[in-house]
Amino acid sequence: MKKTIAVVGLGLIGGSLALALKGFEDFEIVGVDVSQPTLRFAAEHGVGDAVTADAMEVVPRADVTVLCLHPRGIVRFLGEYRDVFKPGSLVTDVCGVKTSIMAGAEILPEGVDFIGCHPMAGTEFSGIEHAFAEMFQKSHLILTPRPSSTPEHVSLMERMGAYIGCKDVVKTTPEEHDAILAYTSQMMHIIALSVCDDEQLFACKGFEGSSFRGCTRVAALDVSLWTELFSMNSPALLSAVDRLEENLHAYREALASGDVKALSDKLAHSAGRKRRMDLEGPDTLTLE
Amino acid sequence: MKKTIAVVGLGLIGGSLALALKGFEDFEIVGVDVSQPTLRFAAEHGVGDAVTADAMEVVPRADVTVLCLHPRGIVRFLGEYRDVFKPGSLVTDVCGVKTSIMAGAEILPEGVDFIGCHPMAGTEFSGIEHAFAEMFQKSHLILTPRPSSTPEHVSLMERMGAYIGCKDVVKTTPEEHDAILAYTSQMMHIIALSVCDDEQLFACKGFEGSSFRGCTRVAALDVSLWTELFSMNSPALLSAVDRLEENLHAYREALASGDVKALSDKLAHSAGRKRRMDLEGPDTLTLE
Repeated sequence: MKKTIAVVGLGLIGGSLALALKGFEDFEIVGVDVSQPTLRFAAEHGVGDAVTADAMEVVPRADVTVLCLHPRGIVRFLGEYRDVFKPGSLVTDVCGVKTSIMAGAEILPEGVDFIGCHPMAGTEFSGIEHAFAEMFQKSHLILTPRPSSTPEHVSLMERMGAYIGCKDVVKTTPEEHDAILAYTSQMMHIIALSVCDDEQLFACKGFEGSSFRGCTRVAALDVSLWTELFSMNSPALLSAVDRLEENLHAYREALASGDVKALSDKLAHSAGRKRRMDLEGPDTLTLE
Repeated sequence: MKKTIAVVGLGLIGGSLALALKGFEDFEIVGVDVSQPTLRFAAEHGVGDAVTADAMEVVPRADVTVLCLHPRGIVRFLGEYRDVFKPGSLVTDVCGVKTSIMAGAEILPEGVDFIGCHPMAGTEFSGIEHAFAEMFQKSHLILTPRPSSTPEHVSLMERMGAYIGCKDVVKTTPEEHDAILAYTSQMMHIIALSVCDDEQLFACKGFEGSSFRGCTRVAALDVSLWTELFSMNSPALLSAVDRLEENLHAYREALASGDVKALSDKLAHSAGRKRRMDLEGPDTLTLE
């Protein structure tokens, strides 16, 4: 008999995951959502192998349950379904904060494993109609296993990551995840939002290149999702924003000083750091 | 007899332009550079129809001279060749500041027209080996004609822009160009550099998605070029950075307040502004 992966929440990420997981080993992919239009779209577009509005029908028999809800929705679902998950099964998620989620998962009974998961993929759009199977190609898959997570479950997550196209799997603690993601992801969104608050925004049409588009793209974000992500990780995010304010102000002062040699040295320092980062991936050749 | 466009400076932009302009109307494209390796590369890769190290050979007969040098190099070239440009010809450039360039062009004798030009295209790489003919596809071409520029020359620039694939041609004053570009381009580079100065930079490998790559890509910049662009436009750039510091700090305070409703309202406001901008182009569908 086939095993079952339940994907709970068929939004942009859940929908893409249900598409990308189809054909994975001997699993049937069952999509779960409360919205009838979403379920209809999923059924019509082959998002997963089957869909249902009834989590109670699929969760008790799922070998893996992937919670693709907003962070507070994940914590709520864990509480409501704690006694419903199949003994020995694995529960995981996809969201961008991990400390609160891992704490929420403490409620699960012994014998139900939980591995925090965050695929570093997405777009600025929302909803199943923007889902696509290739979303996870070449992205990092971050895992925060419990100390007690079984090697079999960790290995299963790694195989799922490889199957959906992730370029690597990075294991870390929830605390380290949240500290670093405050910088690499949440702060990028704060920057994009702040740039779009500029009084010049609407005057600049026709004058933007892809450095502007690249920086501001993510400002068109899902407000309720990002309000949760920001507020559930605000100490780390505040620390990242404070560091940015300091580094930005140092550039402001270097510009204001009129010392061209010092400005040039400062640029060489920062540009050298960027080159040492040597990020790979499809974006490095994007047009400016 | 064929007319002549001299492309002076075969770096990333000049090289791409010489490639993109090939076949334009009845013009021969002649690339000019002082570097023998660059000229050899250009000749071997068909960058332009002909190449020469001798500007004195081509500038006197060029109907259009496009200066693809760093800003101070452009001003220097205008001074050194002021009496060499062909009477009735058009001189133009491609650089990212316009007020200083237009002032530098005042030195040209009557009868030699100058139209400032800034194609909003580029990559974070430098040098002819990274040039490609498609660079200008779907980018804006910004022109700052003199009040005295002839309609024929403006029309010629517009046709050149269309030929190399620009999606539109935007005409403005040098002052407006510099004020807006301080925001849409130079500030994006200051942000990228500041983000790369963060102490977490090297720790974040494996934890970055394309919001991070999109924001920081341009930090790997050409130091001497961007030192000139920043310092030649520092009043406008300082004003843009001051506004960013203010908008960023407002987000910092909204986060620190712990008022989730106020944070959510603020996100909705900024995200709504971004959506109203409704930028088109190939980047909007890039993976996050």
